[in-house]
Amino acid sequence: MTLDDLIQRLRDFAAARGWEPDHTPKNLVMALAGEVGELTALFQWLTPEQSAAAMAEPELRGKVLDEIADVMLYLARLADVLGVDLLAAANAKVDRNETRFPAP
Amino acid sequence: MTLDDLIQRLRDFAAARGWEPDHTPKNLVMALAGEVGELTALFQWLTPEQSAAAMAEPELRGKVLDEIADVMLYLARLADVLGVDLLAAANAKVDRNETRFPAP
Amino acid sequence: MTLDDLIQRLRDFAAARGWEPDHTPKNLVMALAGEVGELTALFQWLTPEQSAAAMAEPELRGKVLDEIADVMLYLARLADVLGVDLLAAANAKVDRNETRFPAP
Amino acid sequence: MTLDDLIQRLRDFAAARGWEPDHTPKNLVMALAGEVGELTALFQWLTPEQSAAAMAEPELRGKVLDEIADVMLYLARLADVLGVDLLAAANAKVDRNETRFPAP
Repeated sequence: MTLDDLIQRLRDFAAARGWEPDHTPKNLVMALAGEVGELTALFQWLTPEQSAAAMAEPELRGKVLDEIADVMLYLARLADVLGVDLLAAANAKVDRNETRFPAP
Repeated sequence: MTLDDLIQRLRDFAAARGWEPDHTPKNLVMALAGEVGELTALFQWLTPEQSAAAMAEPELRGKVLDEIADVMLYLARLADVLGVDLLAAANAKVDRNETRFPAP
Repeated sequence: MTLDDLIQRLRDFAAARGWEPDHTPKNLVMALAGEVGELTALFQWLTPEQSAAAMAEPELRGKVLDEIADVMLYLARLADVLGVDLLAAANAKVDRNETRFPAP
Repeated sequence: MTLDDLIQRLRDFAAARGWEPDHTPKNLVMALAGEVGELTALFQWLTPEQSAAAMAEPELRGKVLDEIADVMLYLARLADVLGVDLLAAANAKVDRNETRFPAP
């Protein structure tokens, strides 16, 4: 299973349900922001140390997996609708970051 | 270039700069939320129709590519630090969504 | 009831429950981001026109009131913990905006 | 200067610039999310302890004041456009929280 497979699956999922008209970039950015908000809420009262051990708590682990998945789904769907190659864009950004933040 | 390659590249990038202690899940979730905020700002005054044509505007296109890349980078790094397989988690969520939202 | 009254009430509320150690600016910013995410989610699939009529839908109206209240509560609490006079800061920003965006 | 004064000032500000058509609840929620993202970014790499001392750093202090002001401005404007009495909604929520989280 690759990112391209996931993107294709989401495309089919939206098409089968007639959701394409709702999937404008504007709406999908909001959906992404909403899911990131839910993910943030899971970590808000944890110390940094507790956050590093979050996946060892079964109930919290399930919630984190659920929310991080939702973030990935909306990000992949947004990229697809915008025609953005997510991995290429991410790699190009790391290239720029190599210049901005040279390794010692 | 796969998502796994990107994750490995980010791991090396952080290690080479001594950034690992800062990359707690709590901090990375905040960084992710910050980048999603910047992405949201690019679309805030656009109509849904304008948002669908965002990539045809060269200046806006560059900004969208930059911000969507930052979101992908922090999401990938967060998943790595948490030990989450992002594609597996996303696919498992689509499985659950197939049940929650049956296709007509 | 003024904003100062609300801030005092939140201060007493946190103190009575022993929550002050959890109310660091970092944690409160995350809580604010989480609530804004929930508010955003309420509007994500609405057209701009539907969003303008949101308060005419009784169920949606209740959710919007609840989430907008949570955003106000965490913003007020964050400002208090940081020692920021929220209204003074906001007015100073409008002063700057008068210069940045002169009225025609 | 009260919150009502601020809201009136923002109403006049938008009217004088012809910005009212852009100020739909959907757009304003996105603007609020964008500003909260910027505020979050200021705290992302700080420890909880460093975040508590943020206002003692002159440069960071200026940025925090600027971003927290922007969050207040968009929240006030959003509430006005929705016809929500922000203080009343916040107080009603604290009333509910007194029941949800009884003081010991």
